[in-house]
Amino acid sequence: MAKKTAISPTREENYPEWYQQVIKAAELAETSSVRGCMVIRPWGFGIWENLQQQLDQRIKATGHENFYCPLFIPLSHLEREAKHVEGFAKECAVVTHHRLEKTADNRLVPAGELEEPLVVRPTSETIIGETFSNWIQSYRDLPILLNQWANIVRWEMRTRMFLRTSEFLWQEGHTAHATETEARQETMMILDLYNDFVHDVLAIPTIKGEKTESERFPGAVGTYTIEALMQDKKALQAGTSHFLGQNFANAFDIKYLSEAGSEEHVWTTSWGASTRLIGGLIMTHSDDDGLVIPPKVAPQHVIILPIIHNDADKVRTLEHCEKLAASLRKQSFNNMPVRVKIDARDIRGGEKAWYWVKKGAPIRVEIGPKEIDADEVSVTRRDHSYRDRQKLKTNELIETIAEQLTAMQQNLYQRALTFREENTHDIDSEKDFYEFFKNDNGFVRAHWCGDANVEAKIQADLSVTIRCLPSEASEAGTCIFTGKPSKQMVIFARSY
Amino acid sequence: MAKKTAISPTREENYPEWYQQVIKAAELAETSSVRGCMVIRPWGFGIWENLQQQLDQRIKATGHENFYCPLFIPLSHLEREAKHVEGFAKECAVVTHHRLEKTADNRLVPAGELEEPLVVRPTSETIIGETFSNWIQSYRDLPILLNQWANIVRWEMRTRMFLRTSEFLWQEGHTAHATETEARQETMMILDLYNDFVHDVLAIPTIKGEKTESERFPGAVGTYTIEALMQDKKALQAGTSHFLGQNFANAFDIKYLSEAGSEEHVWTTSWGASTRLIGGLIMTHSDDDGLVIPPKVAPQHVIILPIIHNDADKVRTLEHCEKLAASLRKQSFNNMPVRVKIDARDIRGGEKAWYWVKKGAPIRVEIGPKEIDADEVSVTRRDHSYRDRQKLKTNELIETIAEQLTAMQQNLYQRALTFREENTHDIDSEKDFYEFFKNDNGFVRAHWCGDANVEAKIQADLSVTIRCLPSEASEAGTCIFTGKPSKQMVIFARSY
Repeated sequence: MAKKTAISPTREENYPEWYQQVIKAAELAETSSVRGCMVIRPWGFGIWENLQQQLDQRIKATGHENFYCPLFIPLSHLEREAKHVEGFAKECAVVTHHRLEKTADNRLVPAGELEEPLVVRPTSETIIGETFSNWIQSYRDLPILLNQWANIVRWEMRTRMFLRTSEFLWQEGHTAHATETEARQETMMILDLYNDFVHDVLAIPTIKGEKTESERFPGAVGTYTIEALMQDKKALQAGTSHFLGQNFANAFDIKYLSEAGSEEHVWTTSWGASTRLIGGLIMTHSDDDGLVIPPKVAPQHVIILPIIHNDADKVRTLEHCEKLAASLRKQSFNNMPVRVKIDARDIRGGEKAWYWVKKGAPIRVEIGPKEIDADEVSVTRRDHSYRDRQKLKTNELIETIAEQLTAMQQNLYQRALTFREENTHDIDSEKDFYEFFKNDNGFVRAHWCGDANVEAKIQADLSVTIRCLPSEASEAGTCIFTGKPSKQMVIFARSY
Repeated sequence: MAKKTAISPTREENYPEWYQQVIKAAELAETSSVRGCMVIRPWGFGIWENLQQQLDQRIKATGHENFYCPLFIPLSHLEREAKHVEGFAKECAVVTHHRLEKTADNRLVPAGELEEPLVVRPTSETIIGETFSNWIQSYRDLPILLNQWANIVRWEMRTRMFLRTSEFLWQEGHTAHATETEARQETMMILDLYNDFVHDVLAIPTIKGEKTESERFPGAVGTYTIEALMQDKKALQAGTSHFLGQNFANAFDIKYLSEAGSEEHVWTTSWGASTRLIGGLIMTHSDDDGLVIPPKVAPQHVIILPIIHNDADKVRTLEHCEKLAASLRKQSFNNMPVRVKIDARDIRGGEKAWYWVKKGAPIRVEIGPKEIDADEVSVTRRDHSYRDRQKLKTNELIETIAEQLTAMQQNLYQRALTFREENTHDIDSEKDFYEFFKNDNGFVRAHWCGDANVEAKIQADLSVTIRCLPSEASEAGTCIFTGKPSKQMVIFARSY
């Protein structure tokens, strides 16, 4: 007999549809009437705010300052870096008019055509390029280390909430340096920062590495990525850091007078992580009962569910719950007060508990008259079975709450890491490689000679791409496709 | 002999130009290559982040949750509330295409025309209307109390940095309620919240009140405002809260099943405050030497300026400064650690001090070998004359730092309040009213009968508008323009 689950279909039955249903049941987001744009609901936005705050802290702690650049980019700006515009031309939302007018037959139509069309930013290198060229004169002005939190528009044909939406939220870092070495160090420092952040805060294990040329950011000299493995064994690119060389410095004439008195072009980097991370979080940790949220980004840590049988119980139970909530809020987890919510809605207890299971609240605490009399609480952790209730003394809950949240955070990471390890395979022949991807998914480590034609053929045949050349390189070997020498194994997978 | 000032022209010489020069000298923002859009530089954005964090806390403390709505609004949505679309039609940026294409002669042009044009949000009532109608079924779903931080586009013909830009940043609250009373309470609660926030955090005194019909938000039943007086004696609308009645509920069919079982339309509100507040802050507090920032929103509270005469001093002085900075950072102001920066750049001491005067850092601390030997510091507060240096023992500075920041915050508020009081006049005849505004500016309190024609004539004659009908109403009287009865005095002024 099939186990009853809160989410239907299950991951096994239909993973893409399970994903949509988890988002719906957890009230994370919904599609809007604008193609490919989503409304992020408070519970989803609460996760984003927690993620944002902790990533922002790390970005500032490494010397970057926040600023804000315009939403619109003049077409002529976008054109200045040839590969850049080529990369984004197919997905640009273009503003062509600046007002609306009534026609004779009373229809509202665009009017006031702009002299130059404006592109809604698909990324901000080109507008930053102009800004940098205004700000930078001397070596004393360098480095410039900036970051912005902004909305981005890339007109996507096939969209999926959080993973690929026409509008998304992100941070984009932009830096300018006097030397190549410094710009390369920045690129790699940010890659490490993303890697550590995604591990520590989102409990998602990732593999760091460099993208192949075909997967490079348009206009970059080198693109570095962190790659995660979802529960359907497909890869998700979770953040990228680009070494832009002097491409944008040349295109926007960003020059500085060196200490020696010569005029030099700067070296730039850019790097971004987006609301896509929420999609990664959902697909890494959630189960057939709904969302599971790593405690460090959960909008609430503890949901207290008062069990009220009659009006006589009500006052006493709610007062007891309020006192417990106050005590829990005095505890600290992840350097912040524990976040506690009492759900006193007048609906059936079972329905209410399932509501919070589906929303992925880390810890549920049920309290009724029996529990109050025994000075106990009934505690369930979202990463354990919903049947796995713990009876704890009230004080025990308060004293161990931070410990339990930490344990859950670590358990989620370990679970995901084990899953990834079980689904990472070393393959040493082309035949086995094709065989594997015909029937399965996962990370495949294999030797590749660096030939872009081989890469293109694999993609055409199997929809499999090289996710990265891992920073932790294997030994050299022989390409399984061509027999030519290979510097290191690379990671293959189907991906989002 | 004219006093030498860091900003030229002075306020008296040319106020609008002084304003631009303060922004430039403080590195707050700059115009971009996109008409009317600005780049907010790190020091300006730091003020915004501090403002945002403190306003966000207050919005959440009153039960609202953050969420995010799409940037784009389908044209057909905007049309559904007739007055609303009429109000915004003239200033909408319209997206008509979703990609770029090369022509035969190699020019890049918009391509892929959208079936329905999309308007870049000038405000989000209409997209929220649709969302609310999806979310609300029963009285149990009410109230809904939401807020979002977002960028907004209103295509302005005459722009001025922070005060009126084509793109700006803001928060917009959107709430839905079961009853008119509740929605009206929300509207007024938010007006109070804005008023208190602007007083407490930005040190700007404001007058609360209702807008006349002609100044109402398009689609609102009532618009409430807080009005501040700038140093050129012109008014600035610093935040608005709208009671929308059932206008948007009707347009978007937002209905709920009441407890009694009947189907009812909800009552909605919306309210917003924007980066315009930074313009208000600049124009309220700054002087002819540049920006003055209220400590509660200053990106740095204390700037330590090491005085280094030679290499022998250098190590010792910097070490001493680092120790002092660490001690100051352990102090708390406004419930947060004191923010301290050491400016160790290798430039002339005078130039460096002026740099921070112009940037409006609240407290400058100079330390050289003499000060170290005497265990002293030389302290200057930005709201005092730059000549007004205090010699303090190092410990005295540490112990009194929070006190001094508090004193500065209060002094700025008191100074602005005194200025407003000196420039608020009760006028009781039409002749005196015209006489006054021909030669001067300020808040004028006068009786007005409520006739919109009178209001329009005054605006046409003098460019003076009714800023609000103050919440703290005067006694009834006689209209100075028509002789008809007037319920209360209203506030007139020229405005931004």
